[in-house]
Amino acid sequence: MNKENPKAVVLLSGGLDSATTLFVARSQGFALHAISFRYGQRHAAELGCAAQIAHAAGVVQHQLLEVNLSALGGSALTGASAVPKHRTDAEIGHGIPSTYVPARNTVFLSLGLAWAEVLGASDIFIGVNALDYSGYPDCRPEFIAAFERLANLATKAGVEGTARFRIHTPLIAMSKAQIIRTGLALGVDFSLTSSCYDPQPDGRPCGACDSCALRHKGFAELGLTDPLEK
Amino acid sequence: MNKENPKAVVLLSGGLDSATTLFVARSQGFALHAISFRYGQRHAAELGCAAQIAHAAGVVQHQLLEVNLSALGGSALTGASAVPKHRTDAEIGHGIPSTYVPARNTVFLSLGLAWAEVLGASDIFIGVNALDYSGYPDCRPEFIAAFERLANLATKAGVEGTARFRIHTPLIAMSKAQIIRTGLALGVDFSLTSSCYDPQPDGRPCGACDSCALRHKGFAELGLTDPLEK
Repeated sequence: MNKENPKAVVLLSGGLDSATTLFVARSQGFALHAISFRYGQRHAAELGCAAQIAHAAGVVQHQLLEVNLSALGGSALTGASAVPKHRTDAEIGHGIPSTYVPARNTVFLSLGLAWAEVLGASDIFIGVNALDYSGYPDCRPEFIAAFERLANLATKAGVEGTARFRIHTPLIAMSKAQIIRTGLALGVDFSLTSSCYDPQPDGRPCGACDSCALRHKGFAELGLTDPLEK
Repeated sequence: MNKENPKAVVLLSGGLDSATTLFVARSQGFALHAISFRYGQRHAAELGCAAQIAHAAGVVQHQLLEVNLSALGGSALTGASAVPKHRTDAEIGHGIPSTYVPARNTVFLSLGLAWAEVLGASDIFIGVNALDYSGYPDCRPEFIAAFERLANLATKAGVEGTARFRIHTPLIAMSKAQIIRTGLALGVDFSLTSSCYDPQPDGRPCGACDSCALRHKGFAELGLTDPLEK
């Protein structure tokens, strides 16, 4: 990767969506600066995946930042309450689940923005998805548009005009199957990714949470088997 | 303090402005939930001040959250570069200084929002000030309005209508002298606060940074001596 290319900050959880987003940013010629967060998530195994994906994509830098959202409570993903399992498609598509982490994408985009300003980058990528989105409010286009507007008011670079921040959401209108097809076309090795909300001690997916269900369905629609299920 | 009063999250750095903001929120009948950040600031002495002020105000809870912005670089307040000293009023009023921390208030408000949603609070107080503001873009009314709009799009509580988030900025149009007068009227003990960007090893203010200069001027305009200078 040429370090003279324009820089992009890419939010990288280690899941299927963010891995694909990283490779989309690469395909657009950006020098990749990936950022991951240790936020008190139950499934911190994904951070190891993030490191492997970042390496596979040839990033310039991979930043791991600590921000302990679990101290604030309020989510099955950071707290002690159980992750919901074996929900039907109708249940998954209805309402905001207990795995919602209050203001998580606002916090992560804010930290991504801080890093982008320091790097002199104008472009921030996030793998949000409004279709198979499981009901998270901070995955919707109107949220992203509001954050982009905020970013240009919040920063020295935005106010002085040295950067015009753009929040890129290449997956926002894709189905899970389309995301997988896009990732495969760009060379993403999905065996390196982790999507499960509640992985087993050896890191293997539970196969029953909403995230496992959506991922399984996506591969199945393409007539493929998830490499994690092989 | 009655815990049945409506809850407010108050961003509390330990400085003069945030201490006054905390007491303004108290005077409006809110149950106070103060939040402070260990973000890699040089002047972490202010966190001890924050704890004392929180206690003096009778807060329900004081949350100290770690988020290491210094890992991202980009500011004299978190890095190794020198804090500017002995600047004139004209210099202080012109441009964005090296003590600007990229996207700091965006990050802090995001984390305050996360906590507010968990607590079931709709009201968030921040002691930003657009008059003696030293040129920070994230202290302006247009930034605050954009964040308030974002907050209501970003959250489960905002989307479901269980909360209508409001960002309160009681100091935004005040001079430093007006802030000090307001704080004194509400019983703030300014000897507990710390405003200096580069305090001495014993915690005493340097007397020469922009923040010390603005604070000194504010007390002088009221014909008072800062208790920290006594």
